[in-house]
Amino acid sequence: MLKEIMENVREKKPIIHNITNYVTVKDCANILLACGASPIMSDEEEEVEDLINICQGLNINIGTVNSRTLNAMIKAGKEANRLNIPVIFDPVGVGASKLRRESAEKIIKEVNCSVINGNATEIKNLVAGTMYSNGVDAREEDRITGESIEETICFSKKLAKTTESIVVTTGEIDIITDGEKAYCVLNGISNMDKITGTGCQVSALISGFAAANPDNIFEATVGAVCAMGICGEKAYRKLNAYSGNIEFGTNIIDEVYNLFGEELEVGAKFEIH
Amino acid sequence: MLKEIMENVREKKPIIHNITNYVTVKDCANILLACGASPIMSDEEEEVEDLINICQGLNINIGTVNSRTLNAMIKAGKEANRLNIPVIFDPVGVGASKLRRESAEKIIKEVNCSVINGNATEIKNLVAGTMYSNGVDAREEDRITGESIEETICFSKKLAKTTESIVVTTGEIDIITDGEKAYCVLNGISNMDKITGTGCQVSALISGFAAANPDNIFEATVGAVCAMGICGEKAYRKLNAYSGNIEFGTNIIDEVYNLFGEELEVGAKFEIH
Amino acid sequence: MLKEIMENVREKKPIIHNITNYVTVKDCANILLACGASPIMSDEEEEVEDLINICQGLNINIGTVNSRTLNAMIKAGKEANRLNIPVIFDPVGVGASKLRRESAEKIIKEVNCSVINGNATEIKNLVAGTMYSNGVDAREEDRITGESIEETICFSKKLAKTTESIVVTTGEIDIITDGEKAYCVLNGISNMDKITGTGCQVSALISGFAAANPDNIFEATVGAVCAMGICGEKAYRKLNAYSGNIEFGTNIIDEVYNLFGEELEVGAKFEIH
Repeated sequence: MLKEIMENVREKKPIIHNITNYVTVKDCANILLACGASPIMSDEEEEVEDLINICQGLNINIGTVNSRTLNAMIKAGKEANRLNIPVIFDPVGVGASKLRRESAEKIIKEVNCSVINGNATEIKNLVAGTMYSNGVDAREEDRITGESIEETICFSKKLAKTTESIVVTTGEIDIITDGEKAYCVLNGISNMDKITGTGCQVSALISGFAAANPDNIFEATVGAVCAMGICGEKAYRKLNAYSGNIEFGTNIIDEVYNLFGEELEVGAKFEIH
Repeated sequence: MLKEIMENVREKKPIIHNITNYVTVKDCANILLACGASPIMSDEEEEVEDLINICQGLNINIGTVNSRTLNAMIKAGKEANRLNIPVIFDPVGVGASKLRRESAEKIIKEVNCSVINGNATEIKNLVAGTMYSNGVDAREEDRITGESIEETICFSKKLAKTTESIVVTTGEIDIITDGEKAYCVLNGISNMDKITGTGCQVSALISGFAAANPDNIFEATVGAVCAMGICGEKAYRKLNAYSGNIEFGTNIIDEVYNLFGEELEVGAKFEIH
Repeated sequence: MLKEIMENVREKKPIIHNITNYVTVKDCANILLACGASPIMSDEEEEVEDLINICQGLNINIGTVNSRTLNAMIKAGKEANRLNIPVIFDPVGVGASKLRRESAEKIIKEVNCSVINGNATEIKNLVAGTMYSNGVDAREEDRITGESIEETICFSKKLAKTTESIVVTTGEIDIITDGEKAYCVLNGISNMDKITGTGCQVSALISGFAAANPDNIFEATVGAVCAMGICGEKAYRKLNAYSGNIEFGTNIIDEVYNLFGEELEVGAKFEIH
């Protein structure tokens, strides 16, 4: 299954429109190119409808949202819905401010998001209406461990049902659920959170995978999350005692560039709950 | 010729004002530093005239244009024209939206651009008023091959004549023309398009070369395009089986840092049509 | 002293709010992660007060300032002052335009900055009200050498006294002064200015160090400046004949990731004037 999903990305080369933050935007572009997709970036309300019409996927991210870009996200999202193009939404730091909270709520209300991807603190805030925050990182108490996994699956499923979206909750274990079934992905390396923007990159990757597999978005999302985890593991193995977070981050995207379907199929480690 | 052109950049250290997109902006800054120039970035209308007055070149790029930054581009461009400072224009994704199309037309109408640099789809759209689009990448059917080269030279010359600009059309072969003479540059590696922003970087590099050689902008442009190609080739030779697009992109700028005039002179491969 | 200062950063993991330019923003995020802090970025006036309330430090940088982001900086700065959170200010290219000059003056007037960090040209402009400019780089005549060091210390102290801030003047020798005492830091490599954003990264690092050591901001600032210098030296030693400015820049952040208190304590080289 995952083999074919990955091969579809490389064959179809979907164009992805990204309305994302200005911190990690270049890495989102490069990881999309690495997986075989073609990124275009714009947050200008005036042109987002035009752009969606030449794209196969939309990636929305509120990492540096403001009122101007929020309008662009809503407009692009509605047009993507009209054209039946998958929309991926990353609610970066949603508990950190009233603006982010209200932006996320508005997006979820007005746009049908195919996938919502966040860390455990972000997803918990979305589902419970709370304002917990550790900035853009997950809180220590929200870590997804063997003990807390059932609780995490539970609130992830809740959000998936309310929004009719695939929900991805990332952490040491990644949860992907459509509200009924939950994949628990075991790939990945815990200190990937020492690189800025790995979460944003997962969202970009999901956009590429979903755009190339529009009839199978749930599994495409699982594929993208496993791909990121496998590439994290491979990138980590190339590090030495002098390596730091930049070399690690660089290696991850380079591994995505070299990843092919067969390797994804074989390397993916998940349990179904 | 190219030797002296490159040496002028390293000696004169021209300051280049960049009004460019927020995706590849850091790479534009770093490639300018690598070639010996000094970059400054700003898209704020209120200060662009001040900045132009301390600069020797202007680099305009519509990769993430909006109405606010378009005004800054026009204002900076007019002031650069008044001061007789070279203006380089990169019409990123010009066929992808009405906004980009109208922005590009406005810039070309109101600013005398010394150089216009785009891929074959972008240049074709500019010259023919069409709206073909493959996002920010060139379309497959616009590839510059042995067969299509005469057609590409033809429409590039047409744009050069209409705009009185040097026109650069990048691809597997790069065309540089002033409307009469056309250089066909054979340096470079085809999968440089797997790195986000190589086109933007070529524009930045042309800005640095043109600013240091204001009386010889045509040859300076040929020099910058050859430099990028040679550095692409050298960067490619350093890759191994585990390398990806990020390492490739990193290497290219590092090669520009190490490139000197003699090597550019000897390594440049072009034909004149 | 410096050992404990560094260890505090790694233990307390302070969250730092950055209102910075879109050129070097990702490197600021990654160097903060590398030293043990947690960055959040936003320039939206509407949310900056909320964000400051979950942060321990604020980093303001006018590298691509505009009227919208200037208001966000002032608002965030005032709220940080109210909450007694350290504010670091980087007056990038302050002599290059009236906008930058007026923005810097407004920030210094309305916000109590704990630390002001700039190159010698920027600090000289701030203290003397002049508009010298070499873009965002220091002018040749402002180089901090054995001969000019006393003059540099003198105008740095003057600014420190007027603003009641710690003033950092970076160059081949870095000066850090509270108006009375001046540390002259000898760590570092001169061609770190060939990498875009090393100055911005020093400001980010100071933010992390100051936020984790709020009762000892002067020494925390010395620690951050020494840390950057030591990491520059170590990064430089890893380069080879084919390395360029990108590899150098990458290595510096990776060295910060691996730097621990003991090494900072031992490696710091400074004189007190």
